[in-house]
Order: sequence, then structure tokens, then C-alpha cells
Amino acid sequence: MMKFTLALFLVLSAAAQNGPVAQPRPLQGFSSESADRQRMLEKQFDSFLKKDEVRDWMKRLSARPHHLGSPYGKENADFIASLFRSWGYETQIERFDVLFPTPKTRLLEMTSPEKFTAKLEEPTLKEDATSGQKSEQLPTYNAYSINGDVTGQLVYVNYGVPEDYEVLERRGIDVKGKIVIARYGGSWRGIKPKVAAEHGAIGCIIYSDPRDDGYFAGDIYPKGAWRNENGAQRGSVADMPLYPGDPLTPGVGATANAKRLDIKDAQTLTKIPVLPISYSDALPLLRSLDGPTAPAAWRGALPITYHIGPGKTTVHLKLEFDFKLAPAYDVIARLRGSERPDEWVIRGNHHDAWVNGAGDPVSGLVALLEEARATSELMKSGWRPKRTIIYCAWDGEEPGLLGSTEWAEAHAQELQQKAVIYVNSDGNSRGYLSVGGSHTLERFMNDVARDVIDPEKEVSVAERWRARRILNGNADMRREARERADVRIDPLGSGSDYTPFLQHLGIATLNVGYGGEGETSGVYHSIYDSFDHYVRFADPTFDYALTLSKTGGRAVLRFANGDYLPLNFGNLSDTVSQYVKEVMKLATDERDAIAERNRRINEKTFEIVDDPVRNLVVPKPEPPAPFINFAPLENALSRLEESCRNYDNAMRDAAAAVRLQSRDLQQALDDALRQVELAMINERGLPRRPWFTHQIYAPGFYTGYGVKTLPGIREAIEQHNWNEASEQIVVVANTLERTAAQIDRARALISK
Amino acid sequence: MMKFTLALFLVLSAAAQNGPVAQPRPLQGFSSESADRQRMLEKQFDSFLKKDEVRDWMKRLSARPHHLGSPYGKENADFIASLFRSWGYETQIERFDVLFPTPKTRLLEMTSPEKFTAKLEEPTLKEDATSGQKSEQLPTYNAYSINGDVTGQLVYVNYGVPEDYEVLERRGIDVKGKIVIARYGGSWRGIKPKVAAEHGAIGCIIYSDPRDDGYFAGDIYPKGAWRNENGAQRGSVADMPLYPGDPLTPGVGATANAKRLDIKDAQTLTKIPVLPISYSDALPLLRSLDGPTAPAAWRGALPITYHIGPGKTTVHLKLEFDFKLAPAYDVIARLRGSERPDEWVIRGNHHDAWVNGAGDPVSGLVALLEEARATSELMKSGWRPKRTIIYCAWDGEEPGLLGSTEWAEAHAQELQQKAVIYVNSDGNSRGYLSVGGSHTLERFMNDVARDVIDPEKEVSVAERWRARRILNGNADMRREARERADVRIDPLGSGSDYTPFLQHLGIATLNVGYGGEGETSGVYHSIYDSFDHYVRFADPTFDYALTLSKTGGRAVLRFANGDYLPLNFGNLSDTVSQYVKEVMKLATDERDAIAERNRRINEKTFEIVDDPVRNLVVPKPEPPAPFINFAPLENALSRLEESCRNYDNAMRDAAAAVRLQSRDLQQALDDALRQVELAMINERGLPRRPWFTHQIYAPGFYTGYGVKTLPGIREAIEQHNWNEASEQIVVVANTLERTAAQIDRARALISK
Repeated sequence: MMKFTLALFLVLSAAAQNGPVAQPRPLQGFSSESADRQRMLEKQFDSFLKKDEVRDWMKRLSARPHHLGSPYGKENADFIASLFRSWGYETQIERFDVLFPTPKTRLLEMTSPEKFTAKLEEPTLKEDATSGQKSEQLPTYNAYSINGDVTGQLVYVNYGVPEDYEVLERRGIDVKGKIVIARYGGSWRGIKPKVAAEHGAIGCIIYSDPRDDGYFAGDIYPKGAWRNENGAQRGSVADMPLYPGDPLTPGVGATANAKRLDIKDAQTLTKIPVLPISYSDALPLLRSLDGPTAPAAWRGALPITYHIGPGKTTVHLKLEFDFKLAPAYDVIARLRGSERPDEWVIRGNHHDAWVNGAGDPVSGLVALLEEARATSELMKSGWRPKRTIIYCAWDGEEPGLLGSTEWAEAHAQELQQKAVIYVNSDGNSRGYLSVGGSHTLERFMNDVARDVIDPEKEVSVAERWRARRILNGNADMRREARERADVRIDPLGSGSDYTPFLQHLGIATLNVGYGGEGETSGVYHSIYDSFDHYVRFADPTFDYALTLSKTGGRAVLRFANGDYLPLNFGNLSDTVSQYVKEVMKLATDERDAIAERNRRINEKTFEIVDDPVRNLVVPKPEPPAPFINFAPLENALSRLEESCRNYDNAMRDAAAAVRLQSRDLQQALDDALRQVELAMINERGLPRRPWFTHQIYAPGFYTGYGVKTLPGIREAIEQHNWNEASEQIVVVANTLERTAAQIDRARALISK
Repeated sequence: MMKFTLALFLVLSAAAQNGPVAQPRPLQGFSSESADRQRMLEKQFDSFLKKDEVRDWMKRLSARPHHLGSPYGKENADFIASLFRSWGYETQIERFDVLFPTPKTRLLEMTSPEKFTAKLEEPTLKEDATSGQKSEQLPTYNAYSINGDVTGQLVYVNYGVPEDYEVLERRGIDVKGKIVIARYGGSWRGIKPKVAAEHGAIGCIIYSDPRDDGYFAGDIYPKGAWRNENGAQRGSVADMPLYPGDPLTPGVGATANAKRLDIKDAQTLTKIPVLPISYSDALPLLRSLDGPTAPAAWRGALPITYHIGPGKTTVHLKLEFDFKLAPAYDVIARLRGSERPDEWVIRGNHHDAWVNGAGDPVSGLVALLEEARATSELMKSGWRPKRTIIYCAWDGEEPGLLGSTEWAEAHAQELQQKAVIYVNSDGNSRGYLSVGGSHTLERFMNDVARDVIDPEKEVSVAERWRARRILNGNADMRREARERADVRIDPLGSGSDYTPFLQHLGIATLNVGYGGEGETSGVYHSIYDSFDHYVRFADPTFDYALTLSKTGGRAVLRFANGDYLPLNFGNLSDTVSQYVKEVMKLATDERDAIAERNRRINEKTFEIVDDPVRNLVVPKPEPPAPFINFAPLENALSRLEESCRNYDNAMRDAAAAVRLQSRDLQQALDDALRQVELAMINERGLPRRPWFTHQIYAPGFYTGYGVKTLPGIREAIEQHNWNEASEQIVVVANTLERTAAQIDRARALISK
């Protein structure tokens, strides 16, 4: 606390002493007078933030397992609601009833060449006070696996992503009728059973290899922070790239009376049974495998030679689940805007955990709570936000973004009419700022980051964010970090509650958090993600909880108080132009790769080189890739670039500043700006997944969490579906044109 | 055998059927008539090759340990000499007396936090018939370690190369007064104690991490081919980048009466005691280390978290050696040339091993023996080579290229006057052709490779060599492999007996062998490099022994029989121009790297980013690097390129072919061509290591085996010694001018 105060003092004094040069920078969305008021307000906001209660809340909220449908989850929702109410927010708990399978039977045994039964158990540790709460803990399992009772030969498939199956094919190995064992990593976990099933596998085991998640990274818990030999990663395997949320109510809120699919018709359940295991359970299976030695890139850190199989090793996997509906309790707290109550600034973080979840999600949730409390303190002096602020604590994020998705679906129309931003957070720890989101918000978020001081260093979090890219980035990243006015924010894929807002509804969205120094990943989705672990390894002083409060708080307060919405478009077109270059290069690269592979096949390069002992299979030739017409996309991009430039120029015009003192114009501009992100969605959605409507950002169909930008085009090219790529170029071009037109409408308001 | 015969038949029939297109290509150094005769001769040579005796010889030569100075080593030398004599070669054994320390005491124990004594023992395996010959085996040790009895804290230094110490410095770790443990790999082993001593360490342990050499690669011996937990890698740690050969007689042959240094004055002994250990011996030490977690790139495949230390872990290392002189027996077999007896074609492979050495060196030696036998069969029909052929079986290669270096030094003057080529081989196994050497021989060697058929595939070894680069190379390598007339051969660093010939005497040199499919590296320098291992994993059918015989045999026979020496210079200047580009780019890259680091220091980027918990140390700034004048080098390169082009053009001239029927001209041309490689040496040698005189190729001062091309310039830049770099640019430029002038002399002979 001392350190932070000193740092802030130094910065403020430097600002005070340096005269005109150090004049506070103007704030987008604010006149210079209102910017001064806003910065005063934020200073006041900061002064209300306290670490002690953040720590107490974490201890309280993570004291018992609180997964979706659990007694303590309900207690937490009630507790959170009571806090909001005590601070003066109009608070309600919205309930949705969602499919949430929990295990009845979990059996994994090796049946040949010897008998071994997996323990499937994370033991109690005396160093971890909550690790012994066996009666309330969900066991290790993957949610939305189907039931199954399968026996078959075992095959190791590395990360189990599509490219891994190309490697298998080259070695003549087919997983049809077999059970695959994949290691965590390389993709979101749900991709592994999906791709395995596509290739005919009958079961899927996912384990945490110590190379990716265990002693390779550092000392294991409880000596150190990292995953121990018995730790296993719970998690959802629903096919969320198709649609997240309740598998039974795609596209609509899972309210009491909602029309529900039969479970057999729910498309996001896996096609084969799936179970996560620890590396102590995986070791006997992997050690037993024979067949070819796995390629170097497939080998983990277990003290064995990794083989692929299949061979003498067979396993039996039996899983039965209780496919029941569970109540999800979303806590929704509102502070009505004084001037534009029908513009909503939404700030959310989930409250459910897989087990105790001190890091995931409580570390982010307590920062949100502290933000809300400090905001309520501001109200005591009579301040009210111009726009309505809504704090949300989501339930059921872990099994599949359930609480947020069902709420977003239930209120879709109203949200598309009223929401001006959604600001998400999730787990938080010591380290560096991380920001993903809509690039219309990139400059805004950089402004926020320039005004938040890092608690460990006497610099802004923006400067630390930028310096980290200079220190760790390649030459291109380094140059950009030094020369570009703003640090580039990441596009969002999936993995937290922002997805329904951004990718389904088209609401401008941010996801913010700190991390990179705190050691949190080794207990991800395990019983050891506990208060004891958090305060040893993640953020012992809770300094970064308050830093997140300041960051999220500023984002919310600036959006709530701005004279008009602080969007900026130069950063958008700059980033979209990068994506356009990327997909054009991707098309060239794929075309070249096909041509190169065909040439090798034709010239018998594989046959000549391959070691005859290894029985490799020569790849099959593929039709050459055509050249694709990218002109519509390039033309639309030009149009977008021009519109963005015109808007930003118009904003810099002194006359606009005068005109923008008009409340009517402010309101009209807000209306126009709010619809820019909406212009990026296409109601028909992406090919084969209509739920995902955003045309710039989507989680990848074969990456799960990993983002695909310009997804319609990019994934068509990746899948070598050239006709679809051409079609999607037109769809995206139309989207960019529509976006440009909407920006033009906004610009027309201020430059008329 | 069937497969090979069929393949050859197909190729020959294809050649016969395709008419003019498939006319045998002309052979460099031969008129078209003499080329036809030569190819007939080679066909005859091939027909004499037999696998059975190659197998028998390997079994005989590897039946007992036969290191330098051992009884069986002497028996082998006598046996090899008797073979050569039986084939009609004028054969002698030349003896040199060389320093060869063997261990009296080897003790390594952990003294804190708990007691552990390393076993230092490779156990007998029932699957390996010779592994139990304990009384004759050299124990695991590093030759030319000094005696020592040291105790100190242990520090893990990764590969122990200079960059690793930069990583330590960043973490504030100093090895002064401590004992380092380094893993094998990343450099030649002798670099590790050298760099450790430069940083003040008092002892050095080198272990085989299973990541680089053990179960990570494949199943361990005896189940599979790879190094087991008790295998340890013997090997020399003499400072061979300073000079190889007998440490007591640098630059002169270690004959009976040679003047010898006192051991205390021998510069190539290590400065600190060094011991190699297995990974089962290393595991308790590494597991015990505390201190910072090692960076990801430093972590091996042991099932532990790798820490750097120093801390509670201390070790005691005690080593005593018997520093005695041992006799090295080089077997030298001559076949006097009929026409130009004073031009020597030298072909060598060592015969000594660390233990039984079936792979290293016997697999290469038996191919050489079979070459010599087949050549002797040719003599039975009255054939004699134009030039003298000398087969050499070297002793004492393992401890430090002793037999070859002492022979080369003892006969230096005569060799520089008479030797026209030295062709080396060493261990050989199943797989792909590998060629390193003088680039004046690149086209020649490509011609040889086009005429040798791969025993596994129905293509030439040249085609397989090229196809492998297409399949595994990056885009640049792939393009070159497809478009360049010849496959580029590798420059030679060190690690086998070619070094004294090429880098000390300036004799055009080749190193040839096959490998990449056979699994040999896991028993390198261990008791398990045995006949039993070789015939299971390296080349069970001995097909590649005969392929090496055909390859080496053609190289020798073509050089011995050519009308004139088959050198080509376009390939030389093409490759030297690459090296010039590389060193210029290196200067730019180093300059940029220094500037970038200084900028980061100046802008406090490290301070802003570094995690305060990790106690990192900000690097120190360094004076900016100046721009360097490369013009002398570029001018000399232009001159060389022109001379090379002119020579190759002159050779293509029809009139030259007529003139070259003159024996006097042939002889004069040979004299001129022989001196081209000599023009590349500089009698003053490289800075601080006068023994290394070649200005194009040298082993790196800090890589040991790894080559540095244009070493004087390159290493000065790497060391940021800008003045020396400028000086060496002039030295190398003069060398290139001298080489160009010598090529001009050769050209003048044929184009006058």
C-alpha cells in the first residue's frame, strides 16, 4: 500500500510541477472541463478502494466449493446480492434452469497388458485448508461428456488437434474404434474429443502432462505453485464453438418456460465419452504404449519414451452422468443513469467455480465488488452516472458460459438496444495488464491504462504493458510497441463471459485482467485453486485486485459519465487491415503448401527420403488451390479506412467540440456509435454456426478458445473450402461496408 | 543384396535404353575416353565388394576394448597392417608416443543436504556380449582433465556455453568457487570446462540428460537403441580448438626424440577437474538443487523441476590420473602411383575406440578396408593408379586426433608438397549421405554421389541427399536443393581426423559417411557401442558399409586416376560469397543487438518489466559497435569470383580438352591445382591459435566441433573485438586474393 501511494504521489507531483507539458491529457468522450471533473472523480474513487475487504471476500467466497447448482453457490449469490443491496444498487437474482450433468460413475482402467485402475482423485493436503472438503467437491470430470462404456486399444494423439491426426496418418495409424489419450494444451479441451470423434475414436482421455502443466514449469503444490502428480483439470467439453450456454436452449434464455431440446438432440454434447486425468494416472497407460516412437514435438516430461500405439495396451472407460437441470443464479445490480438511463454500461465477472475457485473466478469477482462498492461511495456525495451501470455476477460460467449466455439471450433485444459496452473480467493475479476486445475501444482502453499506476513499479500499467512487448516481442512487435500511439489489444476468442455480448449480440466488449507474475495456472480447475494457494503464489498483497478495480472502474465510470461514447475508429481500421492482409497471406500460403506437397508427391520425394523401417505413408495429393478474388474485401476495407479516418478527423475539429456541448447531439451520437459494433454482425451468423454473428471475431471451430479473426473467410481457407472462402469474402466485405456506413452516420452528426 | 542388384540393374538398363540423353555424364578430370574406362573400373571395383567380410572384420575389431595404448588396440593395428600387406600394399606401422592420462581415482559425492555417491559405472548387460569386459574397459572419464580434489556448492549451467553464463548473470548467479554441472550437448564437451573455468568455477560435471541423450529419443538400451540411465559419455576435453594432437608436442610429430613440453606447460589440458556421469548419477544432484527455477530452454527430461542453485547442495569431486605416455600405432599402407607417384591420394579412418567401438570407428574403418581390398583386386588385372594411394588407420583419434595429427605434423612438409586430397570417414550407419569438406571438391563429390546407388531405394545417393533437403529444409534450403546444380557440402569444423590435413596443412579434404536412419548416438563413447548394438540398430545388413566403400572408393580412384585433378571453383566462390554475406550480416546484427540492449537499459525497460520477486539483474551497457570496413573483403571476393569463373570457363573450352591430353600439361596443372587449398592458409594462423592456419574453415573457439567459416573475422565479431575484426578482414582478403592468383595460374596453363 505504501509503495503504491508513493508511486501515485510521485506521478501526481510530476504532473503538477511540469507545467503545461504535463497538463492532463484530454479524455475521449469528454470536453476538457468534464475531463477534469472525471479525473477528480476517479481520484476519489481510488481513495475508497481497500484491500482488506477484498481479501475477506475472497476468503468468504472461496471457503467452500461453489459450482453451479451447489448449496454454497447459492449462498454466494445471495451474499453478493446482499452486498450490492447494502451499497444501494437495485439488485435482483435472475434464475435460469440449465442442463448440468454431474458424474455418477467414473471408471478408467487399463485392461491389457496389465491391470491398472486410475485413482481419479485429488488428495487432501494439510497445507491447503479447503482441499479436504470432499463431500462438496465435484470430482474430476469433463462436463457435457456423454455417457459411455467403451473398451479399446489406446492411441496417444498429442494435443489431439487436426494437425496431430495428419501426423498419425503419415504413420499409417487410424484411431477408428480406439480410445485416444490426448494431453491438455494446444487447443481448448473440448476440441480434443470433437476431433477424436470425427476420426472415429470411441473414447477420449485428457491428461495434464507435466511438460505443459506440472513439475516442468516449477515446484509442485504444495512445495510450489504448480500442478502436482494427482492434480487433474476439470472443465467443459461442450462444443461451445457451435454455441455456448445451455445445450438445451440454443439462442433463447433458459427460463422456466423456455422450450427445451431433448438431450439426444442437444448438439453441443460430445459424441464420445471424455474424462480428464492426472499425470500419475496417465503414466502407467503411456508407459505401457508401444508402436512408433512419438515425434519429438509430441513428447512430454514424463520419464518415459513416448510411444503412439496402438498395440497391446487396451483401456476400459466407463462414464455415467446425472443429466439434470440445475438453477443458475445471476446476480444483477443496477445503478440508474441520471441522464441517459437507457444506455447501459455492463460490467461482469462470474461467481461459480469448479471447486473453491479462489483464483478462478473469485480474484476477479472481488475486484468487481470493490469497484461497485467504491462507486457506491461516490454516490454518497450525490454523484450519479449519466448512463445506467449494471454489475453482473454470473453463475455457471465454468460449464459453458451458462449464466451470461442465458441472460444475454433472454434480454437480447433490450441489450442490443441499450448496451453500450460490456466489460468482463475473470481470474486475476500479479503482473501485467492484459486487454482483449473490440478495437473501437483500443484507444479508450489505452487512455485508461495510462492513468492506472502499477503497484510494483512507479509507472503506469500502460507503460509496463508496452515495455513488456518491447522486452519479449519479436522485432515487429517491438517496433510497433515503440512507434504506435496505442498498445494493440487482443481480439477475443472465447473462454469467458464476454462471448455472448460480443459475438452473439454485437455489443462493444472488453476483457481485462492482470497476470503473468502470479503463478496460478498449476491449480486451474482443481481443488487446489484455494485461498491458501492464492495468497502464497498469485497476489499475496491483493495489490493487483485493487489495480483491476481501478482499471475496470475507470472503464465503467468513463463510459457511464462521458458526454458521448468514447469510441475511436482509426485503431479499428488499422487492425482490420492487418486481418485482411493475414487472410490474403493465408490463402497464398495454403496454395503454396498444397502445391509444394503435390510436387513432393509427384516427384516421389517422400518415397526417396523415408526410412523404410518406419513404414511411413505418403500423403495423398489434393486438388490445387485456386486464386481467390479478394477485391471486394480490399474495396470494403478502403471504404472503412476512409470512414474511420473521417470520423477521427471530424472529432479533432474544434467546431465539433463546440457542437458536442449539445445534449441532443450527444444523445444522437451515442445512438449512432452504439450501432457501429452492431453493424459488424450478420444475423445469419457464421457458416454452420448461426449463433456466432460477429464477422470480425469468433472462437475458432477447431481452436475453441483461440480467436479467429474474419472467421468466415479464415476458416474457409484453413479448411480449403475455396467456394465458401469466396462467398465469405463478400459477406465480410458487406459487413465492413455496413460498418463504414454506420461510422459515416456518426460522423455526419458532428461535422454537419 | 537382391534389392541393391535390382536397383543397379534398373539404372544401368535405363541408361542403356534412353539413348543419347542417358550418355554417361563426363567426369571432371577425365577425357571422355578415360572417363569411360574409369567408369568400367568402378563397376569392376563394385563387383569385388562383399558384405560378409565387412561384418567379420567388425566383429573381430570390436571384440575387445581397443583404446589408445591398450593391448587389443595394438592387436588391431597389427591385424589391419597384416590385411593391407596381404593385399599387396607397402605397409608400415608408425608409432608416436603421446600423453594419454587414464584415471586412478574417480570420486563424485554429494555432501549436502544428504550423502550420495555416484556409481560411475556402466553395468554389464546380458543382451550385450562385450559389455562385461570390465578388466579391459576404460572407465567413464574425460581425457585431459587435470587432477583435482574440490568441494563446493553445485550450480546447474545448462549446456555450459557462453550464452548460458549471460542467463546466470541476469539472475545474479556467479559460479566463482563453485562446481558446475552441465548437460552434454549445445557444444563440444571440452567447451564446458573451459568456459566454466573462465568464469571461476573449480570443477565441472558433465551429464547426459535424457532430453538430449536417453529415453526422450527412444527406448533405452537394451530394449531400444538409446542411452540408458547408467550410460555415460567418455570423451576428450583437451582444448582442441587451440591445437589437437599430443598436448606435449604442439606443431611437431610426437616421435621418440621429439622435444616435449612439461605437463604443467601443456596448454590444452583443462584448468579444472572434469568428470562425465550418467543421468542416474545426475538425478539426485539435480533434484536436490534449489535456487531459481531454470529457464524453460534449460530444462531436460528428468522428472524434476530443474533449479539452478546455488544453495544447500554441495558436492565433492576428486580425480587423479596417471599422466603417462602411450604408444599410438598408425597403420599406413601405400600403393605407388604409376605415373605421378609423388602425388598422394590419402584415405583415412581411425581404428582406436573409447571401448569396443563397433560404430565409432569400426563401422567406417571396415568400409575403408573393403575399399582397399577391392582396389587390390583391381591390381590383380594389372591396373595401377596414376597417383599414389595411401590408406591410413589412425590410432588415438578419440583422446584428441592424436595419430592423425602427429603423423600430419611429422610429415608436414612432404604432405604439403605431395598430398592432393585427404578423404576421411568415421562412424557409419544406415541412412543418408553426409559430406563435408573443401568446396573446391563440391562438384567432384556430387559427381561421385550421382554414381552411387542407395541400397534402400532405386535412386542415387545424390538424389536421396538432395530429396532429404527438399523434404526437411526450410524454404531457402528447398529452393537451393531444387535449383542448384550441386548439393552444397558442409564446411568442416572438427571432431575427426580431417582437421590436421585441412586446417593445419591446407590439403583439400573430404569427410564422408552415411547415417540418419541407423540409431547410433545413444551408445556414443560408451561400453554399449558394441557389435550387438550395431547389428540391431545401426546397419543390420551392412549395406551402408558397402555404400561407403563405393563412395570413398570412387573418390579415391577418381583422384588417383584422373588425367588432372578434378577441382572446380565456381562452387568455391559461390560458397565463400555466402560466408562473406554472413559475416557482414553478423556485424550488423551484433551492432543492432548492442544498440537494442543499450536502449533497453537506457529506457529502463528491464526495470519496468522485471518481476520484483525474481531479483533479476539489469544487464550492463556496452560501447556501441562501430561500422566496419568490409570493402577489402568484398573486393577480394570479386577477384576470386572472377578467377573461379575464368577457370571453369577455360575448362569448358574444347581447345583446352585437346591441350590437356599432354601429360606435361596435366602434371603442371596438378601442381598448380594442388596449391589452391594451400593458398587458403596463412602461416601465422588464427589469432591466439597459430596451429589453425586455414582462413576459410576452423572449429570454433567456443564451439569446439562446430565450424566457424572465415573464422578470423567471424569470431572477432562474435567477441565484439572490432579492431581485430578489421585486421582479420584484411588477412582474409589477402587470402582470397592469393587463392584467386593461384587459380589464375592454373587457368593460365590451360588457356594459353
